Amino acid sequence: MLVDGQHYRTIWEHPTPGRPNTSRGGGDTSGGPDTIRIIDQRHLPFEFVIEDLKTVEDFARAITDMHVRGAGLIGAAAGYGMYIAALLPEATNIAAFDAAIELAAKQLTATRPTAVNLTHAVDRQLAAITAAASVQQKRQAALHTARAIADEDAAACSAIGNHGLPLIKKISERKPGQPVNVLTHCNAGWLAFVDHGTATSPIYAAHDAGIPVHVWVDETRPRNQGASLTAWELANHGVPHTVIADNTGGHLMQHGMVDLAIVGSDRTTRAGDVANKIGTYLKALAAHDNNVPFYVALPSSTIDWSITDGLADIPIEQRHPDEVRFIQGAANGKMETVLLTPPDSPAANYAFDVTPARLVTALITERGLCPPREDKILELFPERRQR
Amino acid sequence: MLVDGQHYRTIWEHPTPGRPNTSRGGGDTSGGPDTIRIIDQRHLPFEFVIEDLKTVEDFARAITDMHVRGAGLIGAAAGYGMYIAALLPEATNIAAFDAAIELAAKQLTATRPTAVNLTHAVDRQLAAITAAASVQQKRQAALHTARAIADEDAAACSAIGNHGLPLIKKISERKPGQPVNVLTHCNAGWLAFVDHGTATSPIYAAHDAGIPVHVWVDETRPRNQGASLTAWELANHGVPHTVIADNTGGHLMQHGMVDLAIVGSDRTTRAGDVANKIGTYLKALAAHDNNVPFYVALPSSTIDWSITDGLADIPIEQRHPDEVRFIQGAANGKMETVLLTPPDSPAANYAFDVTPARLVTALITERGLCPPREDKILELFPERRQR
Repeated sequence: MLVDGQHYRTIWEHPTPGRPNTSRGGGDTSGGPDTIRIIDQRHLPFEFVIEDLKTVEDFARAITDMHVRGAGLIGAAAGYGMYIAALLPEATNIAAFDAAIELAAKQLTATRPTAVNLTHAVDRQLAAITAAASVQQKRQAALHTARAIADEDAAACSAIGNHGLPLIKKISERKPGQPVNVLTHCNAGWLAFVDHGTATSPIYAAHDAGIPVHVWVDETRPRNQGASLTAWELANHGVPHTVIADNTGGHLMQHGMVDLAIVGSDRTTRAGDVANKIGTYLKALAAHDNNVPFYVALPSSTIDWSITDGLADIPIEQRHPDEVRFIQGAANGKMETVLLTPPDSPAANYAFDVTPARLVTALITERGLCPPREDKILELFPERRQR
Repeated sequence: MLVDGQHYRTIWEHPTPGRPNTSRGGGDTSGGPDTIRIIDQRHLPFEFVIEDLKTVEDFARAITDMHVRGAGLIGAAAGYGMYIAALLPEATNIAAFDAAIELAAKQLTATRPTAVNLTHAVDRQLAAITAAASVQQKRQAALHTARAIADEDAAACSAIGNHGLPLIKKISERKPGQPVNVLTHCNAGWLAFVDHGTATSPIYAAHDAGIPVHVWVDETRPRNQGASLTAWELANHGVPHTVIADNTGGHLMQHGMVDLAIVGSDRTTRAGDVANKIGTYLKALAAHDNNVPFYVALPSSTIDWSITDGLADIPIEQRHPDEVRFIQGAANGKMETVLLTPPDSPAANYAFDVTPARLVTALITERGLCPPREDKILELFPERRQR
């Protein structure tokens, strides 16, 4: 999406494909890039910092320390990390090369052990690289696979936008000249994927199609991904938006100020229960109480086909209490962390909650919309009928 | 309640009644104190600062700049502010004295124009002071009235605690040896009143009676009164508690981790709709969805007997967006304000929302419990049958 009027993905090759590679001293890159670039998201929304990743260690640190985060982007970063591993200039024979690749795979997988897209990406690269015969073919397979992972993520998000767009368009036709008010929670935006995002994708599609939209951005305590990432994305792409405390959505819905809610999903059951950022459930309750449509946008990669009951079967990650006790922001032009609670007061930090399918109007997937019911989900994904 | 093991109210006389007054140079205080002390709450939870108020200007500044805040405490401060006004040493005749008192009343009323307890307190003092004959009698009437306002507030809060205690006791008997988990939102604690608080009063009563209680404290964005005031209160009184992001309560209720919720009220309709800090409605929805009892503790002074429908009839204050965009906390031992959003992103700041009576289990008033229904409320307050 746009940053200062220029199109960016969250991860890209440098030099840009097709241009001569001049920046690397040693190693055969087989015509591929020797550097991968990312947006170091830790500095947002205050600074737009581009970081060069040139080694597996660079990738491992970028994922662990959350320079990049978000389901789709972690997968794409792991894919490119494996490609960079395959450039190892010191690999002299196939056995040594494969051993080094195995090591890189372990190193990357260990960065965020619960992120399912990361494991998928690394496994896919391992299979592709192992299947190729020569070192040069392995490098080409790794580049091809890294690009495929990133492109497929962007394509799935784009498709979600196309499927969600008519929902916004229909509301817009009922209130000509007035903006469609969308509420979203956390960051299921392009910064969490390679491009477009999930919850934001229909919003960007509507905005780009000239439909007036306005987004209520939940700040999303404790990590404030709404205030820092979603607001920044929307501002840069020129989408009108207003940041609100997480407490506010119910009041807005009571007063007809929200036309629809769209959120993302970190894990979805085959029956349509949705685990998403903590607080999503509260907004779903308010939407239900006020007849506001509540949509969940998700690539099918977030569907856990092995489970049905989200409340019983999805484990909820507890993160460090200091993410509640402290908050980070900008003071006098630099990042500062401040304490919010009495120094000795304990805090609890549940990262996600589960929204039961009964509160969800529909899922927006890359294959289209469907009600959050097992039979309807399986109509879109018939290959998953067998568990 | 207790601070470092010592009992405090939020406002008190200095010197303490009964001890000789030696600190004031001029003026006849008729045996009353010449100084009123408050806790300057702007420094909580990081510093416990006691402030001396000696002039009407001191009181006006303390209320306007929120050294003191909260329905009951604003009323008590206005009462004592009028008493301090009545000490005016330059008053030489009754007409000049009454004119000066009228001026002080205007000055105090202007500090927080929407706070209903403030107007009530000032009007009550005006009536008492005007009714007395001599300057000395007026001063005595003002002192008597200021004490009555503060004592009645503390007594109402204490009664709310006594009426709420059996609710907690009953739950405790069902789970012997385990703490009763109470969720509260914002600060309806003793810092908002003269003593005890409203939502916290049954909690303190249970704790003091030896019933194990644990409180989930919503941090309460945007002003964070939960994290900074309620947590501080509970910590100082020794009540176990855990601070949580406002997004968390629904998840806790889904998993049986909340036995009951108790919140306060800023304005209640005669039919039991409740306007309270923004986000209260979301917790009430979650409580309803999970069969968790949801109580609202309130002195009857918050009931607006002229209205029935909270959503239609209670205007919701919008405060400055910078309360959402910025947050205050402690860094390196001093208070610091940091920006949380992109510098140009707008924010909205609705201060309250309305919880419909259908989501409230019962009101806890100073006269006892009642269902949130007009006929039942009027059984407790029969003098209000006529509008």
